[in-house]
Amino acid sequence: MSEKIRKIGVLTSGGDAPGMNAAIRSVVRTCAYHEIECVGIYRGFEGLIEGDFKVLSARSVNNIIHTGGTMLKSARSKTFRTAEGRKAAHTHLKNAGIDALVLIGGDGTFTGGLVFNKEFNFPIIGIPGTIDNDIFGTNYTLGFDTALNTVVQVIDKIRDTASSHKRLFFVEVMGRDVGHLALNAGVGAGAEEILIPEEDLGLDRLLESLRRSKKSGKSSSIVVVAEGDKIGKNVFELKDYVNENLEEYDVRVSVLGHMQRGGSPSCFDRVLASRMGVKAVETLLEGKSNYMVGILNNVMALTPLEKAVKGETDINMELLRVSDIMTT
Amino acid sequence: MSEKIRKIGVLTSGGDAPGMNAAIRSVVRTCAYHEIECVGIYRGFEGLIEGDFKVLSARSVNNIIHTGGTMLKSARSKTFRTAEGRKAAHTHLKNAGIDALVLIGGDGTFTGGLVFNKEFNFPIIGIPGTIDNDIFGTNYTLGFDTALNTVVQVIDKIRDTASSHKRLFFVEVMGRDVGHLALNAGVGAGAEEILIPEEDLGLDRLLESLRRSKKSGKSSSIVVVAEGDKIGKNVFELKDYVNENLEEYDVRVSVLGHMQRGGSPSCFDRVLASRMGVKAVETLLEGKSNYMVGILNNVMALTPLEKAVKGETDINMELLRVSDIMTT
Amino acid sequence: MSEKIRKIGVLTSGGDAPGMNAAIRSVVRTCAYHEIECVGIYRGFEGLIEGDFKVLSARSVNNIIHTGGTMLKSARSKTFRTAEGRKAAHTHLKNAGIDALVLIGGDGTFTGGLVFNKEFNFPIIGIPGTIDNDIFGTNYTLGFDTALNTVVQVIDKIRDTASSHKRLFFVEVMGRDVGHLALNAGVGAGAEEILIPEEDLGLDRLLESLRRSKKSGKSSSIVVVAEGDKIGKNVFELKDYVNENLEEYDVRVSVLGHMQRGGSPSCFDRVLASRMGVKAVETLLEGKSNYMVGILNNVMALTPLEKAVKGETDINMELLRVSDIMTT
Amino acid sequence: MSEKIRKIGVLTSGGDAPGMNAAIRSVVRTCAYHEIECVGIYRGFEGLIEGDFKVLSARSVNNIIHTGGTMLKSARSKTFRTAEGRKAAHTHLKNAGIDALVLIGGDGTFTGGLVFNKEFNFPIIGIPGTIDNDIFGTNYTLGFDTALNTVVQVIDKIRDTASSHKRLFFVEVMGRDVGHLALNAGVGAGAEEILIPEEDLGLDRLLESLRRSKKSGKSSSIVVVAEGDKIGKNVFELKDYVNENLEEYDVRVSVLGHMQRGGSPSCFDRVLASRMGVKAVETLLEGKSNYMVGILNNVMALTPLEKAVKGETDINMELLRVSDIMTT
Repeated sequence: MSEKIRKIGVLTSGGDAPGMNAAIRSVVRTCAYHEIECVGIYRGFEGLIEGDFKVLSARSVNNIIHTGGTMLKSARSKTFRTAEGRKAAHTHLKNAGIDALVLIGGDGTFTGGLVFNKEFNFPIIGIPGTIDNDIFGTNYTLGFDTALNTVVQVIDKIRDTASSHKRLFFVEVMGRDVGHLALNAGVGAGAEEILIPEEDLGLDRLLESLRRSKKSGKSSSIVVVAEGDKIGKNVFELKDYVNENLEEYDVRVSVLGHMQRGGSPSCFDRVLASRMGVKAVETLLEGKSNYMVGILNNVMALTPLEKAVKGETDINMELLRVSDIMTT
Repeated sequence: MSEKIRKIGVLTSGGDAPGMNAAIRSVVRTCAYHEIECVGIYRGFEGLIEGDFKVLSARSVNNIIHTGGTMLKSARSKTFRTAEGRKAAHTHLKNAGIDALVLIGGDGTFTGGLVFNKEFNFPIIGIPGTIDNDIFGTNYTLGFDTALNTVVQVIDKIRDTASSHKRLFFVEVMGRDVGHLALNAGVGAGAEEILIPEEDLGLDRLLESLRRSKKSGKSSSIVVVAEGDKIGKNVFELKDYVNENLEEYDVRVSVLGHMQRGGSPSCFDRVLASRMGVKAVETLLEGKSNYMVGILNNVMALTPLEKAVKGETDINMELLRVSDIMTT
Repeated sequence: MSEKIRKIGVLTSGGDAPGMNAAIRSVVRTCAYHEIECVGIYRGFEGLIEGDFKVLSARSVNNIIHTGGTMLKSARSKTFRTAEGRKAAHTHLKNAGIDALVLIGGDGTFTGGLVFNKEFNFPIIGIPGTIDNDIFGTNYTLGFDTALNTVVQVIDKIRDTASSHKRLFFVEVMGRDVGHLALNAGVGAGAEEILIPEEDLGLDRLLESLRRSKKSGKSSSIVVVAEGDKIGKNVFELKDYVNENLEEYDVRVSVLGHMQRGGSPSCFDRVLASRMGVKAVETLLEGKSNYMVGILNNVMALTPLEKAVKGETDINMELLRVSDIMTT
Repeated sequence: MSEKIRKIGVLTSGGDAPGMNAAIRSVVRTCAYHEIECVGIYRGFEGLIEGDFKVLSARSVNNIIHTGGTMLKSARSKTFRTAEGRKAAHTHLKNAGIDALVLIGGDGTFTGGLVFNKEFNFPIIGIPGTIDNDIFGTNYTLGFDTALNTVVQVIDKIRDTASSHKRLFFVEVMGRDVGHLALNAGVGAGAEEILIPEEDLGLDRLLESLRRSKKSGKSSSIVVVAEGDKIGKNVFELKDYVNENLEEYDVRVSVLGHMQRGGSPSCFDRVLASRMGVKAVETLLEGKSNYMVGILNNVMALTPLEKAVKGETDINMELLRVSDIMTT
């Protein structure tokens, strides 16, 4: 099967993440290294369906390794969920002579890819790109490390003003229904409390913890809240609740939002993206399909896409304990 | 009168701003240079009332020029609005042998200072510290330049994700009831539209502008909204309004919030703070009082505090026009 | 004359500076606003001579306002110093229908432009782009503010390690034969001593100052040295000299080099570039030539190019004094 | 043995690295959590010999997690290499009632610790803090990730100016006699060539590679050179050599120097430091000694200090290959 791969297509889909451009660059350059063609597919599955393709040379990806976003754009496609949509996509791929696809994205992207592979036996390999780090089969997804740095740098700024005024801040960070981003950024930012979906602290214990923090002489408090937290209140409601129950605090809220998805990727994400791009292309060239490239214990590893989309990523219990100790 | 000044107190009050620590450092070092004592007063007027003082040596302000927040903390004081509060403050100052005050803050701080001066004939000089740049008598307030850089760097990140997904973002920035921060940051961030209190664009023209921007081929749009904007809707309502009226846009909101007040000051703010601190102390040593130190046409200038708190700062009409041209 | 301007060319020449892309964008968009064509000329005068032109639409400068370097590239051209070279350039301009030029650069660029204008009566306007801030007729050149932030941020890092080890660092910054960058960055970075060409401190007084600083209890020392400083020794020789004469210091050297020219422009530089681009184009449209656009006392101002290249920029004596006081 | 530990000392020694303060904070807070005392020892082994100790409470390490350098200062101590020096150190420890030490540093620090332990049977645990990542027994040393980000961010700036002028830059990075920093930062910065001690590319192949890069249409070239590289020339000699042999290049040099050791730690380093501090203290409380805490395959792991100082860290051959492919 490997001898058949003469042209590889690459696309980014779902929420964008820092490092996607570095991954695209790596896929393109690895194709050039193996002297096969690489085709960029714009706007994810949407562009696949519409045949929005462009041949990418090694030079066309100059000067993008350090940029945020994705030069191929991204989109969520409803049409790709229909058989007609996927049919059109397959026709475009055949017409363009593309033999295999590298899909950069998250769960949804991989699920779409699996359906497409099943219908047309079309070789695909996934690269996990999401700031949420919620993909089974890799210790790190592309963009996670960058997003962590973005979040701690912003909280560093918030702490300046928080500690000048002895305020309490609830800072909401992304992460969908997992707490990896919140837990790591919370520890990194020296947060007094971290609320994540995997652990329901409960409102009573939150109040108690804040009271203890105040008593211990802390000049300010930062509480990092994962967007998917299940404490039963969003950050604005949390603010009101604490305002009502803890008179001594001047409480504020900050929802970090989409800035977490942008920005120049960290060195870690650039290196990871470069490694994953090489592995993705060379896995296709070995005649394999339906795998996700990941990093496990510091080496490149393959996980069946089926497992990647079904598996769950556990919260690091040791880190959770470290977080508790740090707020002593 | 000048021979009487042997000890100067310094405090920060109101909202904190990057550069306040650099200003404190400058006040302290200028006192040391002139061989007079300097006393730090904690938590603004609150600490004045409570006698929360600490002598500051030249070395005690080592390594703070680059830090955000204020080492002297800040607060808003209700008690200082009472005659009793101010009486207590005066007693503490007399007991500590403090002859004059440098007040770092904004309108409210200066107003409090003027009342205090009137009652006790106590020499005061103001240094304008606020990210809003809304003080008459200075082209730049401390923190404004840093906040501008914070805002454009965050919008640069947002644009990464906005342009990957062809989205429209409403980004709310601070500035109370003036648009200086929004206008400058909007131009600096290359925003497609800037909504400021000084100009009511109107909802119809906003929609029209967004439609034109879309047609012109822009891959994304950023609309910067001043918190005091008078378009009649907050950013969340704006989002809903545009969603209802412009189908082609996927609209998101980002409220930047308090991160704008924190962070390491820019070189501009550090230099400005250093200059202002020298000028403030030396103005007191010349026997003057009730002035605000400012920068006008690149030189240090004094403005009567009375004028500083009453005067208004006009929006830069030339820059407003530049903004219009840039969104062609 | 104004009715003749239908097409404007823009080029960047000499050393690049952050904000050049923002200025190009502004020139292009202002042309679009006034419905005239804009042509980008690549590699400065080299591209002018070779006819390396490309029409720039308003959309072709999307997403460059925040980028360092210059999308039009820059170069130093020997050929443009010859009559033949300039003849070729003029022929290309005529053939392309270009009626006027906006030149973004420094002294050398403007001098070349003046010669060209004299020979062919070709309308030109200059925009000062250099990190050195050494152009008469403007309080700020493009890139100066960004370079200041780059320098202080790097020195902040150096100070971390300097103060951990109680070391003395000589940090060489750019600035050619003027000390603006060194003086401002030195004050902003809290340097213990600043060596600039405009003031010959002398080696004896340097040693004395360092001894005093050590005695005063400072845990580390940073000496900022302008590359054009006239103390008679480069930073490496200074290190050796101090090592021989001050045993108590562990001395290190850091030459910041070209990183000072790169990086994303500060908000200040982006706004300044946007304003200057508008002013440059509109000045040409008013039928004027041979002026440099500058910012004087916060408003856009025109200075005859002849004066701009001949005039000198004085060091800010007040700031020099502030620097002395800060190192008390 | 574990019941004997009632008071733990902590020091930083050798070259400082970002994350050392976060590690100190973690050691202090973990002691507080286990209700034992923690004593900070200043200036590494120097302070140990002089008894320069200070009790550190949980609050005394507020607001340091994000700072570079080390609040305990560092130093290299000759006296500690003498039996008298170590005797004095032991006496001070006994007098202060300190039962065990956490040593944050590199090879030299651990070697000193081992000698001390052998002589006095004094419990010690090491935490690897160095930007060089050259310690056996941990995938990451504290500061490595931060230094990588510092380097790529600076090279991003250099590339701006390099590509504006089509220049070739030799950029020297730290790393002593290993190439981890250079290899990872080189891949992350998209360098055209990376020269590391572990691989002698040879001058001929370097020239060939640069010629090929030029031909392939690259607008600029960055060559990252590890300070310990064995190509036989330092970066300045390399520049001269290439200038003589490759006429088409305008070559420049940048030696990044000590800025690489400073700066606010990345989130990765803050989290790693927090985890290592907990593990170090709890390992001592378990009655163990002479181990280094490390991270291996994402979990905290102990390596005998003896092994840590003798073992070597291999260059990642897969990453070396990725680097080759990326420069296609």
